[in-house]
Amino acid sequence: MSADLDAQFAFLNEADRLKSVLRATTLCDGSRRENSGEHSWHLALYAMVLEGQAAPGVDINRVIRMLLIHDLVEIDVGDVPIHSANGLAHASADTMAAEQRAADRIFGLLPPDQAVAFRALWDEFEAAETPDAVFAKSLDRVQPVMANLQSGGGTWVTYHVTYDQLESRVGVKVARGAPQLWEWVRAKARLWFA
Amino acid sequence: MSADLDAQFAFLNEADRLKSVLRATTLCDGSRRENSGEHSWHLALYAMVLEGQAAPGVDINRVIRMLLIHDLVEIDVGDVPIHSANGLAHASADTMAAEQRAADRIFGLLPPDQAVAFRALWDEFEAAETPDAVFAKSLDRVQPVMANLQSGGGTWVTYHVTYDQLESRVGVKVARGAPQLWEWVRAKARLWFA
Repeated sequence: MSADLDAQFAFLNEADRLKSVLRATTLCDGSRRENSGEHSWHLALYAMVLEGQAAPGVDINRVIRMLLIHDLVEIDVGDVPIHSANGLAHASADTMAAEQRAADRIFGLLPPDQAVAFRALWDEFEAAETPDAVFAKSLDRVQPVMANLQSGGGTWVTYHVTYDQLESRVGVKVARGAPQLWEWVRAKARLWFA
Repeated sequence: MSADLDAQFAFLNEADRLKSVLRATTLCDGSRRENSGEHSWHLALYAMVLEGQAAPGVDINRVIRMLLIHDLVEIDVGDVPIHSANGLAHASADTMAAEQRAADRIFGLLPPDQAVAFRALWDEFEAAETPDAVFAKSLDRVQPVMANLQSGGGTWVTYHVTYDQLESRVGVKVARGAPQLWEWVRAKARLWFA
């Protein structure tokens, strides 16, 4: 019990550092850049609220758990903005290898059984093949779109993004897990880019 | 569908403001004050990791959902530090009435069925009577203790807190839902206060 708690708090205290990883996206009011800890909270809330947009059979509680841990590797690797030059090479072998090492280190802080379970959930999210992971990825892609719409353009302005680029980089991934949601968001985005 | 999404995003965009509500507690590295959005994320992660500390029958998925929404009323009311003069009068009729009005407004942004369900979950957390709510409250109380231990005292220094005050204001509430967890944390806290 005591050894488990030592390991669990080594992990939970380390996780605190995610609050200091800054993303390119700002808060909805544009006042400052969002960090990956509060982003993860907002996404989990998205999952609670938008459960009805998921495909039949999606387990929303698993989606919430995935979203709570999905960015922890950024403690070591940092956030890679999707519209940046690096983001467009997001799936580069170097980035993926660094994320694997980060996952080894961070989930490895947990007691062995939890280390395996958390790592498996993160691997599932990264692979984006199961219905739960596909829906989680859709939410992860759509939340910055909503922030940009609220803040007056955000990363679309920073990175000179066109509507067609938004469709190809973001829209197809949101639509894969939440097609009706993307239809609704696309109409708002189209107005902004017009 | 479209009307539901209008309401759901009115809520999700409003929820973004929780990232700008500052707590008295700092990050574990002491670099800045924690906000209530990232705090809610960290607590949900606590629930995932510390599930084994809950009493039999606790539904950890409900606990996670409670923790994700538990602080939303602070968008209107702000955070009331537990060790501050106001915090010691935390259950004052004025504060509770303001939180009720905030809950009416914020959860009322959602579509009617979700507004009722989210409000009921928040009411359950606030009442702290069901096993799920009691465990959620224990986590909410213990996370700032861990942050203070990491950051070198934190709000204990700010508010001149004694070990006995920590026991009476915090310990009894952590122990109510997670007695073995409090035993482990108390040993660390006792060393700090010694």
